Amino acid sequence: MRYTTAGESHGPEEIAIIEGVPAGLHITQEDINEELARRQHGYGRGERQQIETDTVTFLTGVRHQITLGSPITLNVHNDDHNSWSKIMAPNDPATPENTLRKVLRPRPGHADLVGGMKYRHHDDLRNVLERSSARETTMRVAVGAVAKKLLREINVDVHGFVVNVGPAKSDLNVLTQYKDLQELRAVTESFATRALTAEADEAIRQVIDKTKRDANTVGGQVQVIATGMPVGIGSYVSADEKLDGKIARAIVGINAFKGVQFGGGFDNSEKYGDQIMDEIFWDSEKGFYRGTDNLGGFEGGMTTGEAITVRGVVKPIPTLYRPMKSVDIDTHQEHKASIERSDTTAVTAAAVIAESMVAIELAIAVLDKFDADNIERMKEQVAAYREEIRTF
Amino acid sequence: MRYTTAGESHGPEEIAIIEGVPAGLHITQEDINEELARRQHGYGRGERQQIETDTVTFLTGVRHQITLGSPITLNVHNDDHNSWSKIMAPNDPATPENTLRKVLRPRPGHADLVGGMKYRHHDDLRNVLERSSARETTMRVAVGAVAKKLLREINVDVHGFVVNVGPAKSDLNVLTQYKDLQELRAVTESFATRALTAEADEAIRQVIDKTKRDANTVGGQVQVIATGMPVGIGSYVSADEKLDGKIARAIVGINAFKGVQFGGGFDNSEKYGDQIMDEIFWDSEKGFYRGTDNLGGFEGGMTTGEAITVRGVVKPIPTLYRPMKSVDIDTHQEHKASIERSDTTAVTAAAVIAESMVAIELAIAVLDKFDADNIERMKEQVAAYREEIRTF
Amino acid sequence: MRYTTAGESHGPEEIAIIEGVPAGLHITQEDINEELARRQHGYGRGERQQIETDTVTFLTGVRHQITLGSPITLNVHNDDHNSWSKIMAPNDPATPENTLRKVLRPRPGHADLVGGMKYRHHDDLRNVLERSSARETTMRVAVGAVAKKLLREINVDVHGFVVNVGPAKSDLNVLTQYKDLQELRAVTESFATRALTAEADEAIRQVIDKTKRDANTVGGQVQVIATGMPVGIGSYVSADEKLDGKIARAIVGINAFKGVQFGGGFDNSEKYGDQIMDEIFWDSEKGFYRGTDNLGGFEGGMTTGEAITVRGVVKPIPTLYRPMKSVDIDTHQEHKASIERSDTTAVTAAAVIAESMVAIELAIAVLDKFDADNIERMKEQVAAYREEIRTF
Amino acid sequence: MRYTTAGESHGPEEIAIIEGVPAGLHITQEDINEELARRQHGYGRGERQQIETDTVTFLTGVRHQITLGSPITLNVHNDDHNSWSKIMAPNDPATPENTLRKVLRPRPGHADLVGGMKYRHHDDLRNVLERSSARETTMRVAVGAVAKKLLREINVDVHGFVVNVGPAKSDLNVLTQYKDLQELRAVTESFATRALTAEADEAIRQVIDKTKRDANTVGGQVQVIATGMPVGIGSYVSADEKLDGKIARAIVGINAFKGVQFGGGFDNSEKYGDQIMDEIFWDSEKGFYRGTDNLGGFEGGMTTGEAITVRGVVKPIPTLYRPMKSVDIDTHQEHKASIERSDTTAVTAAAVIAESMVAIELAIAVLDKFDADNIERMKEQVAAYREEIRTF
Repeated sequence: MRYTTAGESHGPEEIAIIEGVPAGLHITQEDINEELARRQHGYGRGERQQIETDTVTFLTGVRHQITLGSPITLNVHNDDHNSWSKIMAPNDPATPENTLRKVLRPRPGHADLVGGMKYRHHDDLRNVLERSSARETTMRVAVGAVAKKLLREINVDVHGFVVNVGPAKSDLNVLTQYKDLQELRAVTESFATRALTAEADEAIRQVIDKTKRDANTVGGQVQVIATGMPVGIGSYVSADEKLDGKIARAIVGINAFKGVQFGGGFDNSEKYGDQIMDEIFWDSEKGFYRGTDNLGGFEGGMTTGEAITVRGVVKPIPTLYRPMKSVDIDTHQEHKASIERSDTTAVTAAAVIAESMVAIELAIAVLDKFDADNIERMKEQVAAYREEIRTF
Repeated sequence: MRYTTAGESHGPEEIAIIEGVPAGLHITQEDINEELARRQHGYGRGERQQIETDTVTFLTGVRHQITLGSPITLNVHNDDHNSWSKIMAPNDPATPENTLRKVLRPRPGHADLVGGMKYRHHDDLRNVLERSSARETTMRVAVGAVAKKLLREINVDVHGFVVNVGPAKSDLNVLTQYKDLQELRAVTESFATRALTAEADEAIRQVIDKTKRDANTVGGQVQVIATGMPVGIGSYVSADEKLDGKIARAIVGINAFKGVQFGGGFDNSEKYGDQIMDEIFWDSEKGFYRGTDNLGGFEGGMTTGEAITVRGVVKPIPTLYRPMKSVDIDTHQEHKASIERSDTTAVTAAAVIAESMVAIELAIAVLDKFDADNIERMKEQVAAYREEIRTF
Repeated sequence: MRYTTAGESHGPEEIAIIEGVPAGLHITQEDINEELARRQHGYGRGERQQIETDTVTFLTGVRHQITLGSPITLNVHNDDHNSWSKIMAPNDPATPENTLRKVLRPRPGHADLVGGMKYRHHDDLRNVLERSSARETTMRVAVGAVAKKLLREINVDVHGFVVNVGPAKSDLNVLTQYKDLQELRAVTESFATRALTAEADEAIRQVIDKTKRDANTVGGQVQVIATGMPVGIGSYVSADEKLDGKIARAIVGINAFKGVQFGGGFDNSEKYGDQIMDEIFWDSEKGFYRGTDNLGGFEGGMTTGEAITVRGVVKPIPTLYRPMKSVDIDTHQEHKASIERSDTTAVTAAAVIAESMVAIELAIAVLDKFDADNIERMKEQVAAYREEIRTF
Repeated sequence: MRYTTAGESHGPEEIAIIEGVPAGLHITQEDINEELARRQHGYGRGERQQIETDTVTFLTGVRHQITLGSPITLNVHNDDHNSWSKIMAPNDPATPENTLRKVLRPRPGHADLVGGMKYRHHDDLRNVLERSSARETTMRVAVGAVAKKLLREINVDVHGFVVNVGPAKSDLNVLTQYKDLQELRAVTESFATRALTAEADEAIRQVIDKTKRDANTVGGQVQVIATGMPVGIGSYVSADEKLDGKIARAIVGINAFKGVQFGGGFDNSEKYGDQIMDEIFWDSEKGFYRGTDNLGGFEGGMTTGEAITVRGVVKPIPTLYRPMKSVDIDTHQEHKASIERSDTTAVTAAAVIAESMVAIELAIAVLDKFDADNIERMKEQVAAYREEIRTF
């Protein structure tokens, strides 16, 4: 499985093509719309996001709600485009009228300036920011919805939630209270902040509200847990076969993410060996298993069969309503950065996007090892493999 | 540029092939040997590492100390192999004599158990651990040495050092004292711990010594800084073009690394937008520049021209002389894990390996954008591009 | 540059995403529509093809007729879909009504049977043939149009024509009469058969007409010539860097193509060394050049700077109105193969498709070597390189 | 599975690394040496080739004749290197003594001139020809030997032979006499020319002898047949998934190959649909099958289960003892091309190399679809899949 996204923030359409999804998978547009709604409706998003609802259309690769094995095209229309149809017109030549709203004052922390230099967009940095916008993550959530549907067929579940927004933190110890991700999901999705507890939810709302009043933005951390992965996905034999490495790239590749860690992550640096390694046990029923999961579900770049735990850090959104210092690229004079419509924090959405990226990498890895032509054949192979591992 | 490594820990040879290095680059085996020595001789490595010295041989791709443009093969002989020549013999059939030293008690935290399941190495987990061993990082350091030689041609410098080992930490504030990486390197390489200051060096030695006495192991953090990269390497246009994502994968792909961050990294999650973004300035001499570098040299997955700052976390080595609980894969009885010769900490070596991986990714990215056929032509293109960016 | 296509023959849309096209390239939908029309309107296509006209829409990546550097999405609507909207409905569950027109009798020579086995489409082979249909080549021609637009910026021209259809052949000796591809194009595009001469055009029409009367189909050969490529694109250093190999794959990857050759191709097998090699000359004005071009523009997998000559062979279309023996996959009884609407020959269209595939591979190879971020920067680098080669 | 080769013709070593070979495959150096000998000992090779024997050493990835799942390094020492140790010294700086035997007069038909331009090897074209030499194909034959060993585990057999050398041709009709490739192999390998019949063997020897007396070289065609491939390997869903396209690239990527075709290939261009398509039959014992194999074992880029038939054309060797016109790159004066030691024809060796490349592509494709971690698990999956296809 591999995928490609395309689309500008105010252009007509957002598009993704997914290749290599097995034939025979049941999927509906509604399956995807639910996930798109999750991305849009987190606390801290602008009002417009709260109201609008992205909806997907299948253009190719699906027939009667069943995948064909051929490339799947997902399409989300940009409702905004109506107000931008001239400024973002693909097939009209530039005129004085349709080149209004130029961006010449790059925003620190955004791709504006460097993107303009790289692609020689000296006349209008809009040519950069329309693509570098986090609008693109819509399609990654859509692709992730397909990945999650596939993973569910082999009982792999993936869920993302918010650890903290600025100083307001969830208490991670409550995680042990939930017997599976379905239970956990019911709780965190009941909060508009995707926090773990009502206390954290309240605290996070207050941080976001205050930040908004300050015309500022704020960062946070999100965590993704995946359960049920078969043992031994990924490999130690070559550095680029390590599945945790692939997930790391996927997470850092999300807009605004500045770091990623597995299991105890950075805390491991202050620990000793005997505090961290997950001891090995065996049981005639389940075969080999571990007593703990300090390593976040990975040994040697391979899944251990324990829960995968990935944490990512999201920097504050760089578009400030109280803009920072910049320079006009035309005049080279100092100016405040341009202001684009933006949110107070992207952390609540980021939990869904990170969840999607983890799901995509897991699905790719599963399809690398097992039959990728037909979902039933894949399931047969996974079942046989699981039995083999259980009786190792 | 792309590369592949091969080799078992006690097999006859470690090998790497690098493709796509431009013709005309001056390189000697000594250039690489220096880096191999840096990897071996950190504080906390076993005595044997301290004494032995890996040396590389060019088997292909280099003639008269100049790269040809064809694939370069680097070869490091495993001196250990003499004592293992029967047990690791490639071309002799298995016999009772040459299958001694079987490993049947997988070490928690290592690839042993999962690797055995995945590849069906039920009869001897040595078939896993010989490859999953950190011995493989020798070749990544060798490849990194070639990458650094190439980067130096365009004045890109890369340096790695130790932030902390367990509770003993370097004071990162001293970083501002050094005008360039050459100065910094002179300091950190003067310490066997690769710490930033004499105080940290002393504290880290004490932590390592105590850990060793406890028959335990300990983790830490390393940091890599890269200066001089051209602006706009990597891209925002597609998630998999982001250079910080590629570096994240490379770092997490190193044995024992459990996390990675850029610039302020996880600290960003408690910060507000106006504290983090690097404001933009302009000067007729140097063109656009930033006042700070909180984002670690990346915006939108592209180099900003500021110093790249990457931090990685290394878990403690999982091979303990006071072994943890495991299970014999033959009998399914509980047993202590097997003991392989090992070090107290890998953090001092990890600084060199992380430095190598960052250098490799930067070199690949540079060669993606500029001519990769001849080093002089590449330099001409880089120079023209830098002038273009300066006068943007 | 890389690209992906998606779409079923009677599905709602055909889609292609192209990544890595430099920013700043001028392109219009009309540029692409012209090429789509060339594909549709060759002699031997069904009447419907002759009447219909595919038109493309830019969904992403282009603004005001200028590429942005971000992924470009091309969309061709399937006008046919209206009559198939239920049978090919992506988001409606299967019902007795919308699963009419099932295909259960696979056509020899098509992907029907094997595709059904591979993807377990046992209930309806339409799930295969909708994607394996040559309808998909529409999008390759669309992508090829973008590639040709890019190549034209550096004076590379590409043109495809018909060598023969069945026994009716063009006289290739006339090729020497034309001073460039523009002249040649004017001639071959004046014939609905894309033949080289009026005589061949007439003969080919007669073969096609007779074949149609016989309810049969017929094969042929097409040739693509590309002029103006910079010297040294592709490489001998590794087998998978050879540009002729990449083109071979691209040509054989077109529906119905069963072979490919360069320059004299298979005729070389009866020749001696001194008859074939292109001798080397030098001139102070143009530098090194050849007296002949027997090797079709390649030495060692690299462009020599001489015209690239690629020949491909197209088998007859396997859908016959007088169908061949097959077996019903449901009953396992012998039956004639199913009949789908089809053409008498695809050779005239194949010339355009092969031309597109060669253009795509050349554009990819050019962008691999030169700057792929901005078209003007690319042109500057190509110009500098050409001057370097001229004065070698 | 993927692989990389490295090595210069007179450098110290030829190297290949193969990644992704499943664990548990039995392989010996002798398995590979046999194939290397086949490559060396064809009629028309220089005397030296006839006497020398390449032998391989496993440096990594194999233990006790069993693959580990980790990267396999194959090493063939260049015995010639002793006489070239100074001229090809990797780690000594250039001196007047070790830069003798410079090549400044590029050979038409070789990579010499273009390679020199591309990589700026203006001072010595030996820097090109040492790598562009067909010596590199040694390692492809070595890799191919591993691929064939793997394929044999699932009863896939691959064999290459000579169709013609210059005007002397094998009668392909005899192919139907042999019940399997083992029988065919016994015949063609009994001839030093790899011809199909004693008559063709004699005729080919005469052509080669005469060509040698004329100080000329001669081309030819080789054919590779592969039997037993599972149905449905490769795919129609995207152009780059077509297995015949991948094989086409692999064949054209061999030194001196100028074309490739499948089944009837270029002859199809003069045929009609009803003459070519392979009709479909069914039998309760074997399931679906075909009466003929005109399409060379492929439909829609997928294996049909029938024999795969690939033909390649080899141009004459461009190094002539009666050299052609060239130009000294230093003085720009006209000169005869340089003479390197060479053979009269490479066609007999080319049959083995083409066989190897087909085997490599088939093995890669099999491992893409089935488990690539352990050979026994792969075989279990292949067996289950074959039964599924048989009962479709």
